[in-house]
Amino acid sequence: MNPPAQTLPAFADVLAAAARIAPYAHATPVLHSRSIDALVGAQVRFKAEHLQRAGAFKFRGACNAVWSLTDEQAARGVVTHSSGNHGAALALAARTRGIACHVVVPEGAVKSKLAAIEAAGATLHHCAPTIAAREAACAALQRDTGAVLVHPYTDARVIAGQGTAALELINQCDGALDVLLVPVGGGGLASGTALVARAQPQPMRVFLAEPAGAAETAASLAAGHRVTAFVPDTICDGLRGTLGEPNFALLGAPDVEALVVDDAETVAAMRLLWARLKQVVEPSSATVLAALLRYRERFAGLRVGAVLSGGNVDLDAIAGLFGNTRP
Amino acid sequence: MNPPAQTLPAFADVLAAAARIAPYAHATPVLHSRSIDALVGAQVRFKAEHLQRAGAFKFRGACNAVWSLTDEQAARGVVTHSSGNHGAALALAARTRGIACHVVVPEGAVKSKLAAIEAAGATLHHCAPTIAAREAACAALQRDTGAVLVHPYTDARVIAGQGTAALELINQCDGALDVLLVPVGGGGLASGTALVARAQPQPMRVFLAEPAGAAETAASLAAGHRVTAFVPDTICDGLRGTLGEPNFALLGAPDVEALVVDDAETVAAMRLLWARLKQVVEPSSATVLAALLRYRERFAGLRVGAVLSGGNVDLDAIAGLFGNTRP
Repeated sequence: MNPPAQTLPAFADVLAAAARIAPYAHATPVLHSRSIDALVGAQVRFKAEHLQRAGAFKFRGACNAVWSLTDEQAARGVVTHSSGNHGAALALAARTRGIACHVVVPEGAVKSKLAAIEAAGATLHHCAPTIAAREAACAALQRDTGAVLVHPYTDARVIAGQGTAALELINQCDGALDVLLVPVGGGGLASGTALVARAQPQPMRVFLAEPAGAAETAASLAAGHRVTAFVPDTICDGLRGTLGEPNFALLGAPDVEALVVDDAETVAAMRLLWARLKQVVEPSSATVLAALLRYRERFAGLRVGAVLSGGNVDLDAIAGLFGNTRP
Repeated sequence: MNPPAQTLPAFADVLAAAARIAPYAHATPVLHSRSIDALVGAQVRFKAEHLQRAGAFKFRGACNAVWSLTDEQAARGVVTHSSGNHGAALALAARTRGIACHVVVPEGAVKSKLAAIEAAGATLHHCAPTIAAREAACAALQRDTGAVLVHPYTDARVIAGQGTAALELINQCDGALDVLLVPVGGGGLASGTALVARAQPQPMRVFLAEPAGAAETAASLAAGHRVTAFVPDTICDGLRGTLGEPNFALLGAPDVEALVVDDAETVAAMRLLWARLKQVVEPSSATVLAALLRYRERFAGLRVGAVLSGGNVDLDAIAGLFGNTRP
């Protein structure tokens, strides 16, 4: 029933994930705003994944991975490396099954995020702030504890779990959507969404919102191969990861298109979401509205399903951002 | 069917209001947070009136007043004085009926709030920033245009309309609430809520959250008569009004109790609502959580229905507030 972690998932895996996580994940609401629709010139339905448990869609994939394990696997716990939403999501998912969770975090990670991971009951393991150090620390933990690695976005169980957000959104809209729009970082949410979009009676086009400071997905889709040489420079801390291999394999097709937005556009869009939807969303979430506004001719008159990916922001850092976009 | 504006409304008027405004007002969601419940030590159900049209519960009362008018009355329009949420709410309510709306605003009012009133289609009339000047300007407009005055909180139609928030909340919770908790300023929401609480099969106690810098309702309830001599000094801009006469008449009873909170407690509570519920609420809304936390022994183990009254904040001013309460 469960795809191995390194196999490409299929739509059936998304359906299985939806049933598997239903007892633990929230069915988040769908929100809309007349004034935002008027600004965009389209009918936008926002999937409120910032209201998901642990404050981001990441709980879906983490929860699917944790509950896909056999009892024997589960008894040894799970491990990942993440200083952000995936770490907290995996920690909470592990708690729903009562199993151990190890999270490798780089020195210098944001304290409030680490506190969230620990509050969910995981054990933190600090390492140097390099990819090599993180992977080495994960490998050591796997070796020492037998814990199962749950990668933030290349894991097939994670991709299938993230796809449930789009599945739920489409169902909540009675299928009455023309296109889907999600942020893209490592590509877990994006590739899961593509699986769902292609399985619809009328397949939907998938748009990916990507910050200009980490636009390697746009570059990869344009080049026809994964572009991985880039140094992320964006306020969207959830979108700094590099598009994964299985993610690229699922996304590299003509029905998927990346739309690049500047951070300034993202901040202005975030301000709109706070003011009009009254929702506290993080910058990564706001990229979807930024893309709707910048590329509005692409969406004119369409029914758009857009995922607000998370709401974990540093409230103290926000006003400085808003101050720069005062109308 | 409609009570005159100066008569005390009854529960039947709230029921009539609910039916009257149903085509125009949102049935706002009920939100909760495990972590907030744990902090408070009670089961708190938040009525999300910041997601109401025009961003505050005020639309309910304004809408009920507008749609209570005869066609002949409506043809002459409505008038009020308010530089805040009631002005925008009445403007939007008038637009739902396609009638004129005049809003008298004092010089020096916040520009963004005035823009919201104008955007909803009302005509602004500026006056000197005194109560006398506002009332004189309203009286002149009534005389010149025949417009009907809709007072922000003493109007019986407004009180009945505001009561529909608590009615809807109780229904959404299948009646499974022990007490109700709302912010109090002029007392429109508070007195409407009291009408609903008393009409329940098991009457519910009503708690009013009030900022220390405008605690004349607490003083009035303690004295047994309206205390009106005070100069408001609070960041809760929605709660600076003076408790109205009909409002006092409905609230001065042993089943109603005012709980006073400091602005610092309100800001800390607002921060919690933003961070945990991911909702952009204004300071006035946060007084209810501040009261739950300060007077937690009063609510221990109870099922509390609390109204988040509005979400119209100046995003630029927020960070300064949060900066002072950094944990």
